[in-house]
Amino acid sequence: MSCLLCDELGGKLLWQDDFCRVVRADEPDYPGFLRVILNAHVKEMTDLPATGQQALMRVVLAAEAALREVMQPDKVNLASLGNVVPHLHWHAIPRFRDDPHFPNPVWGAKQRDTPHEAPTNLDALLRAALSRQLARARETG
Amino acid sequence: MSCLLCDELGGKLLWQDDFCRVVRADEPDYPGFLRVILNAHVKEMTDLPATGQQALMRVVLAAEAALREVMQPDKVNLASLGNVVPHLHWHAIPRFRDDPHFPNPVWGAKQRDTPHEAPTNLDALLRAALSRQLARARETG
Repeated sequence: MSCLLCDELGGKLLWQDDFCRVVRADEPDYPGFLRVILNAHVKEMTDLPATGQQALMRVVLAAEAALREVMQPDKVNLASLGNVVPHLHWHAIPRFRDDPHFPNPVWGAKQRDTPHEAPTNLDALLRAALSRQLARARETG
Repeated sequence: MSCLLCDELGGKLLWQDDFCRVVRADEPDYPGFLRVILNAHVKEMTDLPATGQQALMRVVLAAEAALREVMQPDKVNLASLGNVVPHLHWHAIPRFRDDPHFPNPVWGAKQRDTPHEAPTNLDALLRAALSRQLARARETG
């Protein structure tokens, strides 16, 4: 069966290795919305061996750290849902008190119309921060 | 400042140690809705050291494995949001094609009115499965 995340990158590529990739989603309400996508077609975290689970979470948490470094959000939201596309991927979403859904989840009822402002060179800043955070994660295990 | 998850268990207690606890949420639409709650008041995953992040995810993924063992969901949803209660906790939600929001996130638009049926002895089954899965996780690191 065809799978969107097997066929497409799923967003603007910020980082990748042979195991997974980090993309910035095309979500106008949330310019800093990142996705960490496993390259292989696997459905659930518990379908991965423990080493794979840890490797994927290292990248998810490097994405969270990069978002905090670059955007200073009021909160970070992490989620792996996959009801529509059952190919393992994580959402890492910087949340701000003045963003369109706060304090609701981004999938909940909208509260206001304008996204929280983001730096114009967001991709470059996030790429640099991701590299730094992933290097740090490799050092500290 | 007072914090709901410092003051209360946050659901029916299924398992705990000195680091975190697993509770079953009081969510009539989702009888298998589990929460893994850090005991300490910490806001973000990246506020924990790497060892703490790994320890918490081991319990979150044991909760996922227990839900799969007991309820055979079509998908598991994992999320750490905390916009309303910024005390680190994870939602582990078994999803079924006929559940109230599928394929939407449980925070999205409702699609139907009846929850997917759950075993009557759900707490006992989940407690036993959690113990098994956590013992297995300790063995495989």
